[in-house]
Amino acid sequence: FPSKLPQVGTTIFTVMSALAAEHDAVNLGQGFPDFECDPALIDAVTRAMKAGHNQYPPMPGIAALREAVAAKIKALHGREYCANTEITVTAGATQAILTAILAIVHAGDEVIVLDPCYDSYAPNIQLAGGTVVRVALTPGTFRPDFGLIAAAITPRTRALIINSPHNPSASIWSAEDMFTLQDLLASTNILLISDEVYEHMVFDGAEHQSAARYPGLAARAFVVSSFGKTFHVTGWKVGTVAAPASLTAEFRKVHQFNVFTVNTPMQHGLAEYLRDPAPYIQLPAFYQAKRNLFRQGLEGSRLKLLPSTGSYFQCVDISGVSDLSDSDFCQWLTREVGVAAIPLSAFYGNGFDQGIVRFCFAKRDETLRDAIGRLRKL
Amino acid sequence: FPSKLPQVGTTIFTVMSALAAEHDAVNLGQGFPDFECDPALIDAVTRAMKAGHNQYPPMPGIAALREAVAAKIKALHGREYCANTEITVTAGATQAILTAILAIVHAGDEVIVLDPCYDSYAPNIQLAGGTVVRVALTPGTFRPDFGLIAAAITPRTRALIINSPHNPSASIWSAEDMFTLQDLLASTNILLISDEVYEHMVFDGAEHQSAARYPGLAARAFVVSSFGKTFHVTGWKVGTVAAPASLTAEFRKVHQFNVFTVNTPMQHGLAEYLRDPAPYIQLPAFYQAKRNLFRQGLEGSRLKLLPSTGSYFQCVDISGVSDLSDSDFCQWLTREVGVAAIPLSAFYGNGFDQGIVRFCFAKRDETLRDAIGRLRKL
Ligand SMILES: CSCCC(=O)C(=O)O
Ligand SMILES: CSCCC(=O)C(=O)O
Repeated sequence: FPSKLPQVGTTIFTVMSALAAEHDAVNLGQGFPDFECDPALIDAVTRAMKAGHNQYPPMPGIAALREAVAAKIKALHGREYCANTEITVTAGATQAILTAILAIVHAGDEVIVLDPCYDSYAPNIQLAGGTVVRVALTPGTFRPDFGLIAAAITPRTRALIINSPHNPSASIWSAEDMFTLQDLLASTNILLISDEVYEHMVFDGAEHQSAARYPGLAARAFVVSSFGKTFHVTGWKVGTVAAPASLTAEFRKVHQFNVFTVNTPMQHGLAEYLRDPAPYIQLPAFYQAKRNLFRQGLEGSRLKLLPSTGSYFQCVDISGVSDLSDSDFCQWLTREVGVAAIPLSAFYGNGFDQGIVRFCFAKRDETLRDAIGRLRKL
Repeated sequence: FPSKLPQVGTTIFTVMSALAAEHDAVNLGQGFPDFECDPALIDAVTRAMKAGHNQYPPMPGIAALREAVAAKIKALHGREYCANTEITVTAGATQAILTAILAIVHAGDEVIVLDPCYDSYAPNIQLAGGTVVRVALTPGTFRPDFGLIAAAITPRTRALIINSPHNPSASIWSAEDMFTLQDLLASTNILLISDEVYEHMVFDGAEHQSAARYPGLAARAFVVSSFGKTFHVTGWKVGTVAAPASLTAEFRKVHQFNVFTVNTPMQHGLAEYLRDPAPYIQLPAFYQAKRNLFRQGLEGSRLKLLPSTGSYFQCVDISGVSDLSDSDFCQWLTREVGVAAIPLSAFYGNGFDQGIVRFCFAKRDETLRDAIGRLRKL
């Protein structure tokens, strides 16, 4: 039978993690922490299981978690979402994004993505029968080019997917960017999927610009978050989507026939844990220290550091070190130097290779020092 | 924006559970246990979290769990699946079924479902751009009518979805049924999705007829299982799909861009717990006792019991009690009698009402006795 996704292979993250394991390399490829989450969070989940919270939760998620998320968004971004009708708990951000796309994209609809972008967006759009329209972020700075975005809009444009802090480039959108986008979309019916899974990792005093802050964006947006990224539990697969009630209603129609609902004890544990804002309030400083450690370690090496203003990624220009393609370089680096990275070309529809690779610094300081030691030999 | 699923509302299960809660009714509607799972399973998950199994597992699931499932299928059904290339861990059976459908159904493909059937199948097919072809099970017996199935096959038929033990009717397929289906499909390329979530709930000495047992079916089948149903943890949302490598490869392409992967600590806990087959070997006797308790309690009442040969459901004919529609009867029963049930019409594409409602007997004996007491007043 014919493949629905003929161009798709195994994700680059799986490929590089496997290669890292095979060669006993320091894995700075796939984005996940190599340190533990707060034991209090584990205890909260254990208590939930022991208290008998093991059967189906309500389809959109347990009320306590939806209310906690609504309160957090209100506190951080000033927008009130109704926990009952506007917040849905998902099995991670990836499921949230596919579900949103399946809920809104009809056959033949166009969806604009900004390259480089996370590798699930394009296949998600294809699975909905939509057409992927790729607009490049400005090479070098990875900033949105609103002229190019405007030029890509057609009467068939159903949605735009944005992502700040940005994976893989570690750039962030400014308030001005958000206002510009709000103006650009004002006269359209284009919906927005705002992938904000790195929302709590913004550095040097910058503020995360959630789509929830901009009324003209929030009114058309699915705002996607991830507890896995925020609380160092990428394997728990719990995220949320905030969206106006009319969008949420369509989202839930698909959600209930995709996963129906999300792990009950994890939801209870997270709801309890969210009562204390300290863990996410402290997150920027926590990751900024890791970013600084990693950058300082590489200063003076032949890897040229690009800015990292958000997310837990650090991109480097490899042109001073190698004339391999970014992919081949990552393979070589993993095998020969013992550090795994992800080539930026993997995030481009056309495989554009600009000689940049991505490292993940969500690692113990020892791990980062180990990687630095190896990378400085280049 | 136009809805992708204009005909879909809130699932009947959510509606009836909410109504049951509102009226403090005994909830025999939505299928989930009101008793606890084995504390050993909770302990295994807790140990996994404390051991640091909280980050992304491998995309198809952890090896230990896939191997345990392959061994279980081999022991029970005699077919060898390769744990690496033929078993995938999913966020429950519902996600498995949507994912399989998205992976194989192209725009315009037809998929045959047997009415009455679980309410996710049809929207799943629609979301893939496919056409739902509904063939009725024989009213009264709920047995497959292979003449009708054969007549529904066209050159556009991509797949058939079967489900034994059957939700909602509690009927099971015999070995003869399976052979007949195998013969019927032999000359076709039709794929099979076999929803076997109630596999361990078969009564009176009958054996579950997994598609995995029939080589001509297994070679074209996604065999879907649910740990939630088997181990009394419907809220954990972990299931599996066994399918030949070529089908699994396509399945995983979609899976990795839907949920990417499934809750890590639950996978570790389940893998450990599966080492002992006793819990699922004892399941038929456990549920048969509950079925018998419930049936005996209703004997001599004006609710006419249909056979229940598998699943944890008991259907009753309400014609001796009421001339309301099955839906209205369920609403009335919940409000006035204090017992929630699910109307069978909710499982038919055309809302066919034959005056039958479904009770779930996956409940503590006290709960069943409480319900019986209320129902006997009818
Ligand atoms: C879902 S695996 C990839 C994790 C991640 O977000 C990344 O490395 O970009
Ligand atoms: C996913 S909620 C429905 C549970 C169930 O399988 C049923 O009641 O039929």
